[in-house]
Amino acid sequence: MNTNFLRACKGEAVDHTPIWIMRQAGRYLPDYHKVRGKVTFLELCKTPELACEVTLQPVDILGVDAAILFSDILVTPEAMGMDLEFQEKRGPVLPHPVRSQADVDKLIVPDPTDKLGYVMDTIRLLRKELAQKVPLIGFCGAPFTLATYMIEGGSSKSFFETKKMMYAAPEIYANMMDKVTDSVISYLQAQAEAGAQALQVFDSWAGALALCDFEEFALPYVKRIINALKPAGVPLIYFANNGATLLEKTKTCGADVLGLDWRVQIEEAVKIIGPDIAVQGNLDPCALLLPEDKLEKRIQRILDGAKGAKGHIFNLGHGILPETPPEKAKFVVDTVHRLTAK
Amino acid sequence: MNTNFLRACKGEAVDHTPIWIMRQAGRYLPDYHKVRGKVTFLELCKTPELACEVTLQPVDILGVDAAILFSDILVTPEAMGMDLEFQEKRGPVLPHPVRSQADVDKLIVPDPTDKLGYVMDTIRLLRKELAQKVPLIGFCGAPFTLATYMIEGGSSKSFFETKKMMYAAPEIYANMMDKVTDSVISYLQAQAEAGAQALQVFDSWAGALALCDFEEFALPYVKRIINALKPAGVPLIYFANNGATLLEKTKTCGADVLGLDWRVQIEEAVKIIGPDIAVQGNLDPCALLLPEDKLEKRIQRILDGAKGAKGHIFNLGHGILPETPPEKAKFVVDTVHRLTAK
Repeated sequence: MNTNFLRACKGEAVDHTPIWIMRQAGRYLPDYHKVRGKVTFLELCKTPELACEVTLQPVDILGVDAAILFSDILVTPEAMGMDLEFQEKRGPVLPHPVRSQADVDKLIVPDPTDKLGYVMDTIRLLRKELAQKVPLIGFCGAPFTLATYMIEGGSSKSFFETKKMMYAAPEIYANMMDKVTDSVISYLQAQAEAGAQALQVFDSWAGALALCDFEEFALPYVKRIINALKPAGVPLIYFANNGATLLEKTKTCGADVLGLDWRVQIEEAVKIIGPDIAVQGNLDPCALLLPEDKLEKRIQRILDGAKGAKGHIFNLGHGILPETPPEKAKFVVDTVHRLTAK
Repeated sequence: MNTNFLRACKGEAVDHTPIWIMRQAGRYLPDYHKVRGKVTFLELCKTPELACEVTLQPVDILGVDAAILFSDILVTPEAMGMDLEFQEKRGPVLPHPVRSQADVDKLIVPDPTDKLGYVMDTIRLLRKELAQKVPLIGFCGAPFTLATYMIEGGSSKSFFETKKMMYAAPEIYANMMDKVTDSVISYLQAQAEAGAQALQVFDSWAGALALCDFEEFALPYVKRIINALKPAGVPLIYFANNGATLLEKTKTCGADVLGLDWRVQIEEAVKIIGPDIAVQGNLDPCALLLPEDKLEKRIQRILDGAKGAKGHIFNLGHGILPETPPEKAKFVVDTVHRLTAK
């Protein structure tokens, strides 16, 4: 069993810098398309055998140091009672968004072993398959990010409706966030119980918030989750995307590891975060289009920049793009291993 | 003539902190819709009488301290020979994107008094109308931002094609950027000659770049523009949107004023930028949904935060949203004036 990923999360000695890649089980892999071609995206998430199969693909093809559960952050709002569709060009659509206290009242805090049982089944299957290989990461969306989808009814550019609720109806927003947070906590606890060996909280849209709003409307819920999950005893990773201006606050969230997007220089982030938290990141996904010599230089720069942190897990600064040649992803994995081999 | 805006750009004493609002002539104003209802968006840009009319609306309705030419950054690629359409839901579309050296070869560096003569006509009309009121700001897109539209063929999330060209065909990218930069320089020179009293360079997508890419693929062209425009003798404003992580470099661009989006705390930005450059910004456009007492507190915080800068022009951190009630925009203008009246 390759435990470098888990050791890096805790700041322990590693044989090489571990690497995994956000969306590593995904559309850039022909093997993924073979499975995905048979079912819809949500069916893939909800069929443990298939979700397990695509989760394992990058472990075998790329040689990454961790697997991450194939799923989607929006299964949580769906389990809370919201309708959810994935439209080919538009992305996720929640046709009945939350806009009022009455809408909030309709949301349930689901029993995850019931409503999200397929996720726990996938995790149990995966742990068997991964036994001699690498650790398994579970995940969820952070409450603010989930709230944006639930309030906007899908993706957004300005997050107008979300911020309108935050600013003009803060009590409705808080009531909704309490339900989302409770749902996320029990969902992550169930993932850990089923066998997830680390948990990542994705705050994909945190970067849309001014610092004062992040402090008031997003961070407290993240802290509540991390506090509640501490007893589970697995490393906790918080990734606030586009979050360079939030680091002074994200570093207080209690996570073992902070994910970093590519906009921030990793050495600058480490200066702010300090030596007591591990970091994860942060190569621009588009950098995989560079010629190999230049790509290797960028990888080296990130490895050097992370040296002051408690630990470093190499990753991209955002999900790998569907257009990426798989051999370039493999090159990144091999290069990180080669450059850091003890 | 209210010259507070021009004085703030230069760091001179002002009667009150001047304010204008990005996209202040736009869809949140019923008066704008009355004009826009008669013509397409591009027709509005290209009809000097109508462009003049909508440019003047916020000066009269809101009492802002500067007018900004009603136009679009994409008139430059169109003048360079590219087809341009605005589709109601999709936004701008350039159906024949630049992907090869042959595509770059087809681009022309236009004579702006010919291809963009309608802009200069609008500026001359506006200067007459604004004579006793406020200064007029001209503008253009920064080369990197224009390049993203020209290469992607429209808006993008990942800027995959743009970065692919940067990384895999840097000489084609450079050739294209040279033409874009030359076009922008002569366009801004013509705007200044026609009467624009300040010029803003919008780098709307700069925040998609890692610092090393910004330094290599975006900033040199901005510097070239600013150097070329210095002899025009009008204040130059550079706005790198989502650019908190770029400030160490943007401050070297030579602009008199740096625009700031709402993600960065203005006092943190001023610490990095120093006391020799004025700043412009940076209220979250969504903050206009706050109750007035909370909105006023945010405005005060920004005014306080900007105190170490050479000068401060109040603005939003991004364009005003179409959903904004005009009376809230008026409240912001009045509040900035009231809180800073000498």
